[in-house]
Amino acid sequence: MRCIGILGGMGPAATVDLMAKIIAATPAQVDQAHVPMVAVSIPQIPDRIAGLRGTGPSPVPAMQDAVRRLELAGAEGFAIACNTAHAWADELTRATTLPFIHMADAVLEKLPSADAPLALLATDGTLMAGFYQSRLASAGRQMLAPNVEEQKRVMEGVRAVKAGALEEAKLLIAPVAYALLARGASKVILGCTEIPLALARDASLAESVLDATQALAEACVKWSHGSQMA
Amino acid sequence: MRCIGILGGMGPAATVDLMAKIIAATPAQVDQAHVPMVAVSIPQIPDRIAGLRGTGPSPVPAMQDAVRRLELAGAEGFAIACNTAHAWADELTRATTLPFIHMADAVLEKLPSADAPLALLATDGTLMAGFYQSRLASAGRQMLAPNVEEQKRVMEGVRAVKAGALEEAKLLIAPVAYALLARGASKVILGCTEIPLALARDASLAESVLDATQALAEACVKWSHGSQMA
Repeated sequence: MRCIGILGGMGPAATVDLMAKIIAATPAQVDQAHVPMVAVSIPQIPDRIAGLRGTGPSPVPAMQDAVRRLELAGAEGFAIACNTAHAWADELTRATTLPFIHMADAVLEKLPSADAPLALLATDGTLMAGFYQSRLASAGRQMLAPNVEEQKRVMEGVRAVKAGALEEAKLLIAPVAYALLARGASKVILGCTEIPLALARDASLAESVLDATQALAEACVKWSHGSQMA
Repeated sequence: MRCIGILGGMGPAATVDLMAKIIAATPAQVDQAHVPMVAVSIPQIPDRIAGLRGTGPSPVPAMQDAVRRLELAGAEGFAIACNTAHAWADELTRATTLPFIHMADAVLEKLPSADAPLALLATDGTLMAGFYQSRLASAGRQMLAPNVEEQKRVMEGVRAVKAGALEEAKLLIAPVAYALLARGASKVILGCTEIPLALARDASLAESVLDATQALAEACVKWSHGSQMA
């Protein structure tokens, strides 16, 4: 099995969530059948959204340093436990020879086959970066987006997760998911690794969401087993 | 903040549990206030109990390699997310200049101050290695142990956790904890990182157990903040 490197800390709870989902997605009865992983969780990486807006320092040097540390620790490929950070996927993959497992590519493999519209819950930064929208458009899929007021609630909810206030986060984000489903979305893509941590507390949403972290975890296990991607 | 290295994979779920408890034990409102961590989770490290019994290869070379990988990834100190592996604490600390945060030392800091007897739930390997018993004896504490039949159930439960069968594991281990409390233990030390994963499903035990993973997580956060140990 190949050793998966996880660039994390953005936030730290999302990093642990990805690792837990990788373990749960692995068919294993004993320790030795689980996939090897190394994780570099550096919460001090500068804020991604401020970096994208140009109101704060770029997170790229710190992320490139973390990828180098993954290489040194023996990673044979890497994934990023943060959707927004994928805005710099090109800068990161150029700085390493490690293959990269892209979260949005993993999501694309899990899309329902029907032609119904999809909705995307993500940070302002991920929406600005546009890598979900471009992939969904290439796949010919229609996309519903939260309105300005709803997007504000999503961002407040993401910050609440980072502060450990999961129940508050759920109360902020779940109504937006329900509104998008009511407007005709067949599935809501949870395109921010903090969001599943909040929405896991609303079991009635489970069938209506496509958790990008879960999709990435499954892609990582397949990659480690040598059967896919990157 | 100092970067904590976690030697893990024994099992992988316990590694994630330690990381999650470190995050939960950190007072932080934003990502950047969380402690930096690197984890090397290598489930292929040979079975610790077989190694101790001499019926399987020694896990020491693989663990020493993992510690070296933690160093390369930038760890400034390390902890092991497995009690049994502490049987080789000397071999591991001799092979690195990194300071080491010992799980049983972390437990000792959390013992109730009263003089009442304690009980220990641990693997056969941890009991054989004796590092809990020696520390508790030095601290003048009386210790209750499971009987042979109970210890078999504990080991079956630990294997069930490693196979992902948490409910089955709880049904095996919880009765042993209740029996030890009935025999006069004031607290049951959960001295195997798999056991809290099972007993978390029995809320009525919460006040009666001392989770070694939780104690280690708190010690790691204090150490990262520069205020203790190792």
